[in-house]
Amino acid sequence: MGKYTDDSLGLHTDLYQINMAETYWEDDLHNRKAVFEIFFRKMPFGNGYAVFAGLERMIEYLNEFKFTKSDLDYLKEEVGYGDDFIEYLSTMKFTGTIRSMREGELVFANEPLVRIEATLAEAQIIETALLNIVNFQTLIATKASRIKQVIGDGQVAMEFGTRRAQEIDAAVWGARAAYIGGFEATSNVLAGKLFGVPVSGTHAHSLVQAYKDEYTAFHKYARRHKDCVFLVDTYDTLKSGVPTAIKVAKELGDKINFVAIRLDSGDLAYLSKEARKMLDEAGFTDTKIVASNDLDEYTIINLKQQGAKIDSWGIGTKLITAYDQPALGAVYKLVAIEDDNGELVDTIKISGNPEKVTTPGLKKIYRIINVRNKKSEGDYIAMEDENPQDEKRLKMFHPIHTFISKYVTNFEAKELHHDIFVNGKLVYEVPTAKEIQQYTKENMAVLWDEYKRSLNPAEYPVDLSQKCWDNKMENIEEVKRRVEEMGKGEDQTLQQ
Amino acid sequence: MGKYTDDSLGLHTDLYQINMAETYWEDDLHNRKAVFEIFFRKMPFGNGYAVFAGLERMIEYLNEFKFTKSDLDYLKEEVGYGDDFIEYLSTMKFTGTIRSMREGELVFANEPLVRIEATLAEAQIIETALLNIVNFQTLIATKASRIKQVIGDGQVAMEFGTRRAQEIDAAVWGARAAYIGGFEATSNVLAGKLFGVPVSGTHAHSLVQAYKDEYTAFHKYARRHKDCVFLVDTYDTLKSGVPTAIKVAKELGDKINFVAIRLDSGDLAYLSKEARKMLDEAGFTDTKIVASNDLDEYTIINLKQQGAKIDSWGIGTKLITAYDQPALGAVYKLVAIEDDNGELVDTIKISGNPEKVTTPGLKKIYRIINVRNKKSEGDYIAMEDENPQDEKRLKMFHPIHTFISKYVTNFEAKELHHDIFVNGKLVYEVPTAKEIQQYTKENMAVLWDEYKRSLNPAEYPVDLSQKCWDNKMENIEEVKRRVEEMGKGEDQTLQQ
Repeated sequence: MGKYTDDSLGLHTDLYQINMAETYWEDDLHNRKAVFEIFFRKMPFGNGYAVFAGLERMIEYLNEFKFTKSDLDYLKEEVGYGDDFIEYLSTMKFTGTIRSMREGELVFANEPLVRIEATLAEAQIIETALLNIVNFQTLIATKASRIKQVIGDGQVAMEFGTRRAQEIDAAVWGARAAYIGGFEATSNVLAGKLFGVPVSGTHAHSLVQAYKDEYTAFHKYARRHKDCVFLVDTYDTLKSGVPTAIKVAKELGDKINFVAIRLDSGDLAYLSKEARKMLDEAGFTDTKIVASNDLDEYTIINLKQQGAKIDSWGIGTKLITAYDQPALGAVYKLVAIEDDNGELVDTIKISGNPEKVTTPGLKKIYRIINVRNKKSEGDYIAMEDENPQDEKRLKMFHPIHTFISKYVTNFEAKELHHDIFVNGKLVYEVPTAKEIQQYTKENMAVLWDEYKRSLNPAEYPVDLSQKCWDNKMENIEEVKRRVEEMGKGEDQTLQQ
Repeated sequence: MGKYTDDSLGLHTDLYQINMAETYWEDDLHNRKAVFEIFFRKMPFGNGYAVFAGLERMIEYLNEFKFTKSDLDYLKEEVGYGDDFIEYLSTMKFTGTIRSMREGELVFANEPLVRIEATLAEAQIIETALLNIVNFQTLIATKASRIKQVIGDGQVAMEFGTRRAQEIDAAVWGARAAYIGGFEATSNVLAGKLFGVPVSGTHAHSLVQAYKDEYTAFHKYARRHKDCVFLVDTYDTLKSGVPTAIKVAKELGDKINFVAIRLDSGDLAYLSKEARKMLDEAGFTDTKIVASNDLDEYTIINLKQQGAKIDSWGIGTKLITAYDQPALGAVYKLVAIEDDNGELVDTIKISGNPEKVTTPGLKKIYRIINVRNKKSEGDYIAMEDENPQDEKRLKMFHPIHTFISKYVTNFEAKELHHDIFVNGKLVYEVPTAKEIQQYTKENMAVLWDEYKRSLNPAEYPVDLSQKCWDNKMENIEEVKRRVEEMGKGEDQTLQQ
């Protein structure tokens, strides 16, 4: 890597984005305003909700977005773009407007998470990075929330996955996402420093190996650490590890807090129950049991069902890689573009699959909260100029199976998108990770439990307003007409 | 993140590593020499080989390893370490010796990929980052090689996964790993700039949407691009996309090279065959067909089996996240440590599972290559002072089922580990990604095809020398004796 010393992320994009920007620039369309939306089509892990994350890094990226000299040199010399286009790129920065969900917002399939209004060229070039960031961080925050739901409020969830994370950013930003999703701590110290996520960890098997035996290792560890969590499975958990931990704790008495033992292998249900008995019999009834070893929501449900005596859970690989579904499929779709007269006109992408047809136009997203019980009735996607709060009796209907509908009265319509950038200027104050975690918790309280089941949750309604639906239908009809004409279009000629 | 402006990776580690370093430091053991090895126990994806990657970034990390002022402030003020230990950390840098596989080396389960000899404190603190880097990059290089094997040498494999990668590092270093594994190009421009990976890409659906129709979009694109790859599935591949691409190409004649069309949805087998016919009938027999859309080695085998006419393959999500196994389980185990007399003594980690018992001591790894056919007979792990090349007739036996054995004569023993750092000094010249890709290819030629099958490949032998095996057995016996004594050890006391 030695050749370049700057750490620009300007080129962290797909080549075709720059190619398209070049085409627009050549055609003098590059400064036309375009509106894109980010959304995903399918709930990850079959979960009933997702937890939005990634905004802080998106902001960082957009604030610093530019092409450095070395970026431009590379594009010119190695990729072969012309001097005139390179000159244009050299002045590029993000000048657009972003409206987004807040981090920690509960989000659902087919609703816009982020809306990007920018010049066509800018909006295109930033697409790849925004998707890359939102896809990963939302995935991990969701997986963490899902696991934390199974662990429960009374017990502790810790993120231990750095060594298995997909490179450095995934470890650090993943630790933050896990915290946003409800995890209490991480082992990753850098995430602690950067985001204030509480850090956690004691010692590994290698400490016991280095001292040859647990007795010495635990004593040595305790010389410097008042709060002790002893790892007890280096040789034999019940014959050696637990008895030695108890012996050392007894010898040290008030000099340490015998906070916990940690189990990292073997049958965690059996070992935790036996260890609990041994600790209790020795009088250490307040000493907790920490477990780790390839855990996820499925193994935790099983261990709990078997009566495992585990108080704190260290979750590694399965969380930090979202092992059972390691990618969220969020996409970035054009919903409106400025025409020759400077007017924004809606655009749509058609597909044979009804779920894949986009919803055109500038829209706002509301959470419809029942005032009586403070629970959410669903989300409501309306056109920019609508306000559902004006309605006394709001009709909500399924966006595909439109005959499924309900009327809601006495509701509060909470707008979910917030201004982040306005004409290139950051107008949003980024909350701390701790504040975001708290916000996630408040949002979870608004959701019926039926949406929180880890298996087969109820489907949360994400509905379109009548106006939004009508607009979508009109756009579909128009495209159909156009495609039909294209089919006949042997006499098509280019209007240059 | 605003609080800290340096980009130190010193704290990209697990908290327990620093806790252990503190314990060693308190006990004045921190400068004792320790030897750790990185290895994985199970072949990823059930593949017959893995492709080692990650060394370049390991080198970067170790070269820059230190705790900055902001790291130390955080450790002191937020985590609570004492001034004296913080003072020690402030001077820490990497002073050890690293021997490692070269990137692009084919590697196998249970052989040391990297050997770290360093002070106990240093070796412990760098563990997490090294595993994080090696685990991800080796995983992706292996997945890429596996996919490329199915695609074949005559066709082109392109990495298109950035938007679904697990954050930025994963996209950029993943693109490099895919190239090392045999992919021809990436869409990620930053990977092109940093590593010289060829970049590839043309345009997206949004270009067609922006111009409303394909005819205009293709024409506009062609104004600036001599080499044209037209994306033909925005509206209707066979009725609109392909005919329009052909029409535009005919109109433009020699002004462009009609390199390819790209299919990104629908039934790729059917569409590619029909599109091939249409292209051929129009005289564009040299125009290629590029396909993308959730591809991996399994879908590619199926498409080929169905006679799909696809020449180039764009692989995204399934490659960049290693979707079917998104983590490699490489571990970092202590194999020797300096004793009170300054002698290195072997250490072992015992487990009820025979595959999990580590192999103690300083070792060297050789690939035993049959001189007659230039094919590899297997890998051979020997003690540091052994040289299999001294043997006329080398006995190779299975490290668990020892009765499985063979004798090899007329062989070349190629040593696989190379000096990277010696006493903290980098002594290795990092090859370019292109050179590494070439090296991978050369290595693949040495491997029998039976190890390269994507399903149920033959098991490649990774054997221990007799001396290495005997040493392991002695160590096991010794630990067993010690654990037995510990069981009786109620009268144990700490020797302070």
